[in-house]
Amino acid sequence: MSLGEFDIIARYFARKSARSDVLLGIGDDAAVVDSHAGRKLVVAVDTIVEGVHFLANIDPVDIGYRALAVNLSDVAAMGAEPAWMTLSLSLPRANEQWLDGFARGLFELANEYNVALVGGDTVRGPLVITVQIAGWVEADAWLARSGAKPGDLIFVSGIPGEAAAGLAVIQRRILGGESAAFLTHRFLRPRPRIELGRQLRTVATAAMDVSDGLLTDLKKLCAASGCGAQLNVDLLPESAAMRELFEVDDCLQYALSGGDDYELLFTLPPDQALAVLSKLQLQQRVTQIGVITAPTSDDARVQCLRNGRPFRIERGGYDHFAAGKQG
Amino acid sequence: MSLGEFDIIARYFARKSARSDVLLGIGDDAAVVDSHAGRKLVVAVDTIVEGVHFLANIDPVDIGYRALAVNLSDVAAMGAEPAWMTLSLSLPRANEQWLDGFARGLFELANEYNVALVGGDTVRGPLVITVQIAGWVEADAWLARSGAKPGDLIFVSGIPGEAAAGLAVIQRRILGGESAAFLTHRFLRPRPRIELGRQLRTVATAAMDVSDGLLTDLKKLCAASGCGAQLNVDLLPESAAMRELFEVDDCLQYALSGGDDYELLFTLPPDQALAVLSKLQLQQRVTQIGVITAPTSDDARVQCLRNGRPFRIERGGYDHFAAGKQG
Repeated sequence: MSLGEFDIIARYFARKSARSDVLLGIGDDAAVVDSHAGRKLVVAVDTIVEGVHFLANIDPVDIGYRALAVNLSDVAAMGAEPAWMTLSLSLPRANEQWLDGFARGLFELANEYNVALVGGDTVRGPLVITVQIAGWVEADAWLARSGAKPGDLIFVSGIPGEAAAGLAVIQRRILGGESAAFLTHRFLRPRPRIELGRQLRTVATAAMDVSDGLLTDLKKLCAASGCGAQLNVDLLPESAAMRELFEVDDCLQYALSGGDDYELLFTLPPDQALAVLSKLQLQQRVTQIGVITAPTSDDARVQCLRNGRPFRIERGGYDHFAAGKQG
Repeated sequence: MSLGEFDIIARYFARKSARSDVLLGIGDDAAVVDSHAGRKLVVAVDTIVEGVHFLANIDPVDIGYRALAVNLSDVAAMGAEPAWMTLSLSLPRANEQWLDGFARGLFELANEYNVALVGGDTVRGPLVITVQIAGWVEADAWLARSGAKPGDLIFVSGIPGEAAAGLAVIQRRILGGESAAFLTHRFLRPRPRIELGRQLRTVATAAMDVSDGLLTDLKKLCAASGCGAQLNVDLLPESAAMRELFEVDDCLQYALSGGDDYELLFTLPPDQALAVLSKLQLQQRVTQIGVITAPTSDDARVQCLRNGRPFRIERGGYDHFAAGKQG
């Protein structure tokens, strides 16, 4: 507890970056970053709170990793290349073991994607972590939620629901050997789909990352695009690990409503989808799960089909302030 | 409490900006901002926590104003022009009255400096507010803490200590008519010195904003510049309002160690100082308070003189995690 604010920054966060576009890093009133002619800056911010986004007993290494991963996922959803970040850390006390773990998790992912930490603020308070990230994207096109057209095919990367199942494994202390460990890892260590976003940049009509649940997020994409959608739940990719530990209906619930997937949801024009997909150098599964339809009312933007029939699930996606929801 | 996360954003924070360089604002996974050829991006982040940086009973309008003001002060200290910001809001509950006040205070200052809110995150948690700001500065020069040279004259804008005195007025419920109201306002509504920073950009050898106390911050400037300093406390500008409500020694204590001034501390070469000062179009007082000296040890970087004799004050500046300090 003898660490001061400046010791914390010097010891854990002031690391040299290999980036030549960081002209002045941590230590002054502000950082100075070079701009790139012909490129646009993509900016996102995400906050995670102890007890809301992560449990108090989660390994700080995982918290550090996650704080950046959820931001990188936003950068991926824009088709951009991550560049630099700032960190705001509100901490109850200067716990060296916690800080060491947190910094290791954060920089593990930052180094992988060549993201420089250019500035931050360390204050005493409840455990709340905010990372703001910036990336660069070519000036000619970036991905947005708003470009989907009726007839476009809807795709999702990875296996939605595995992260939510992983959270359930942790919360309910489910013992399940390899499957439990796999799902837990999927929750704790989301993989930002940067490479996929880069490849989709000029070919996808719309894209977003799935963080609040597939169904909720597909509704947002439809609302932004002024469209509706049919989602065929029979097409959802199956997870062997989920099937081993959960009932079919629970699996479906996690896939449609579980949060924290950090996969990419995107649309492709039907006449180009096959050619585009065959050219992608995929590092993860991509699955067609539905089709964009003509605009419908706000309440009924997304129709789920199961065995060809309309299908309703009980629980909606995640909203921090919605009445009756728990964080 | 029926407001959802998206209602909060739509109702209070999704405002059209007049800035043409915001290409995609709030509502997608990330914002897209244009870059400016030949200019560099200046980036700063500040977090304020209820109970640490502001009391629970402070008007939310003042909190919103302050959350941005402390960041603008960093932009000013770099000689840059503010451009856009992101906001992270961790809130215990969706209180409409609080949100309305907070947004009013935030945008009052944002509109004054043409700062666009381009993105944010709203989560449920303890009241913690993080604003990250970006501004643009010409490529040829920006202000840093590191350029001061022995012989340079040290200046400060405004009247250091008035903000700390204002906090004391609030905390001790001092009744003092106009003087009390004036000091309270100085604490609640710091004026970012953007115009002064812009004018100093190519002429000051070093600059920073005073947020943790004049003496502490001057030590930081000296450390960054590899210099020492003599600070003549007899030169400190006097505040009539402070003198009316506080003893001389308390005034000195506030001026040297009180935080929250958000004034600019800067250095000018002695042979140019007079010419530079006469050309500044000042909207606030600027006072010479000392001189940069040859490097000394870390512990003794700044020597205070009073009536020509070495002078020591008891209390140091603000450090969130220093042992025995209270927030």
